[in-house]
Amino acid sequence: MKKFYIAKSRRLRGTPFSSRIESQGLTAYTVYNHMLLPAGFEGIEKEYNHLKTHVQIWDVAAERQIQIEGTDAAKLVQLMTCRNLKNSKVGRCYYSPIIDEQGKMINDPIILKLSENKFWISLADSDVGLFAKGIASGLKLQAEVSEPDVNILAVQGPKSFKLMEKVLGKKITELKFFDFDYFPFKGNKYFIARSGWSKQGGYEIYTENREAALNLYDELFSGGKDFNVKPGCPNLIERIESGLLSCGNDFDNNDNPFHCGLDKYVDIKSDINYLGKQALIKVSKEGIKRKLMGVKIDLDKIEMMEEQPLLNGKNLVGYLRSAVYSPHFKKVVGIAMIKKEYWDKKTSFALDIQGTKIKGIICNLPIV
Amino acid sequence: MKKFYIAKSRRLRGTPFSSRIESQGLTAYTVYNHMLLPAGFEGIEKEYNHLKTHVQIWDVAAERQIQIEGTDAAKLVQLMTCRNLKNSKVGRCYYSPIIDEQGKMINDPIILKLSENKFWISLADSDVGLFAKGIASGLKLQAEVSEPDVNILAVQGPKSFKLMEKVLGKKITELKFFDFDYFPFKGNKYFIARSGWSKQGGYEIYTENREAALNLYDELFSGGKDFNVKPGCPNLIERIESGLLSCGNDFDNNDNPFHCGLDKYVDIKSDINYLGKQALIKVSKEGIKRKLMGVKIDLDKIEMMEEQPLLNGKNLVGYLRSAVYSPHFKKVVGIAMIKKEYWDKKTSFALDIQGTKIKGIICNLPIV
Repeated sequence: MKKFYIAKSRRLRGTPFSSRIESQGLTAYTVYNHMLLPAGFEGIEKEYNHLKTHVQIWDVAAERQIQIEGTDAAKLVQLMTCRNLKNSKVGRCYYSPIIDEQGKMINDPIILKLSENKFWISLADSDVGLFAKGIASGLKLQAEVSEPDVNILAVQGPKSFKLMEKVLGKKITELKFFDFDYFPFKGNKYFIARSGWSKQGGYEIYTENREAALNLYDELFSGGKDFNVKPGCPNLIERIESGLLSCGNDFDNNDNPFHCGLDKYVDIKSDINYLGKQALIKVSKEGIKRKLMGVKIDLDKIEMMEEQPLLNGKNLVGYLRSAVYSPHFKKVVGIAMIKKEYWDKKTSFALDIQGTKIKGIICNLPIV
Repeated sequence: MKKFYIAKSRRLRGTPFSSRIESQGLTAYTVYNHMLLPAGFEGIEKEYNHLKTHVQIWDVAAERQIQIEGTDAAKLVQLMTCRNLKNSKVGRCYYSPIIDEQGKMINDPIILKLSENKFWISLADSDVGLFAKGIASGLKLQAEVSEPDVNILAVQGPKSFKLMEKVLGKKITELKFFDFDYFPFKGNKYFIARSGWSKQGGYEIYTENREAALNLYDELFSGGKDFNVKPGCPNLIERIESGLLSCGNDFDNNDNPFHCGLDKYVDIKSDINYLGKQALIKVSKEGIKRKLMGVKIDLDKIEMMEEQPLLNGKNLVGYLRSAVYSPHFKKVVGIAMIKKEYWDKKTSFALDIQGTKIKGIICNLPIV
């Protein structure tokens, strides 16, 4: 497949780490929240094997934070998500579908509760800040919506714990999954969550000061030599196998949280108030006719630019939305929106690749 | 400067024209409204000269349409813009700053009035649809916000008029600047505006049917052989010289319409109602301390990834936001946010390029 360069400009903002990571073997970018997100180094399979064995530092500053602060902040945040945040705790991260009034997906961020009146929404790729501003203006809420200069460094992989302990000290190992706290290091304090967009374990460091951010970046690389540290980025193979959804790839504003298998993050029974609640109650009563599932396809490579129909004879089984060759399964694995008739996984399908029908099967997520 | 590939995925959607334009010499993409926007072919100076002499076809499907329809559509559209649309006419295009409650810029689209209750907002790069949905939900407006499958082909350049006349007939030449209408061609009708993101003249075809869109695409290229037609894209040199602003490059959500020199699109005197009105009245009373102006710099090349400070001695003159080498002026031209003390254009400035101070002067926009 022909490759194209990315045309840089101020509109596709770089990150505090761009100049460093560009000199560390970066080959490709994607764009995410109007920013450059590193997307490739020495090859996706090598990076996959390394991520599952060692530790990587990711420049994921493109995971922008929308800050919502004020006496109505909690009300505004709850209005945007179907997840019940009534009993949410300060110092915790909450994976939360953001939905519109029709109950359709806008984003699937992590919501971080910094205080009773202050939240960060750590975004997938859409301008949720504009949605929040619109609601706040319409309802005249006391809630300021802003984008602080917070740039995330992710430390991911099985050796991330040892690396972070070496650099930041023993206390970081006591941080529980999806908790966050401040940790001191060489005169600065760093906001660190135990989280990340892989299932290999690790941390996300929400840096709030560019100089301190670069200091820690360099310390992680020098301290990480013993652990075979490398620069990396969210890995398509790892995230599909792990069933980590990608907003814009696996779902879009035509899908609701039930279509995405996010049922456990939908509260339609309590008295919380959010915009798409009536729509989701209706969907829940009527039931859905499609949902995201895993697939395995007898191919040794694939390129995905748009969704691809999966057919059984002349019957539509569903649409393939993300896919990549998995060296572990020795075939292509993917995430597809599958019609209800095929949820029993008994029916195989064919994917048309330039006129050739390639066989595939349906499986659960994560793919095992 | 090192170049990087763009990592494609469904999240960065292609357009109906992607496969065609990729086979016509495309070398680079940018990302705009979550879509691929062609950004380079045989070199920016060659493309600039060609655009100013002949005719180009641009795949600008990334200029997405947000459709607002319903009994409150006009009210919702007016709430988002400081331009007075009270006497707007069906069949006309309106360049309109979209602002938030603080009067800060969110987007600078063309608003097209399709009927009294139906508008399209032809977007620069931000999710204005989410802003509209938030306001509509908050105020419980009767206005449906959607993104129709409309993909714009722009025909730009001095020979665009002859090419369009040859393909679509004499009537297209009667279309006035910023008017739009439907024009029939080979069994389909096409929504065409006399507009476009260059000052070289031309049309934007808002295609609503993918098959019809591709038919017209092919007809324009075959009919255009006599006019030396080529594929193209918005040209950085041409648009800076012409003073066409780029959302995200020249301004962002920290700037208001006055900072951008968009005073004539700000109505603070009539009784229209929009979200940032009180903020802009206050700004108008207090006056602004910076605004966008042109600059010329004694350089023969430049790469812009972030804004660059312009200094006079130790005094900050402003920030350079977009810049490119102009073969016409034989130096770099740019758009910069200039502090009020320097609006008289009497002070030169220095731009630091890797330790070397390069001289520049301030000028008006467009740059002549």
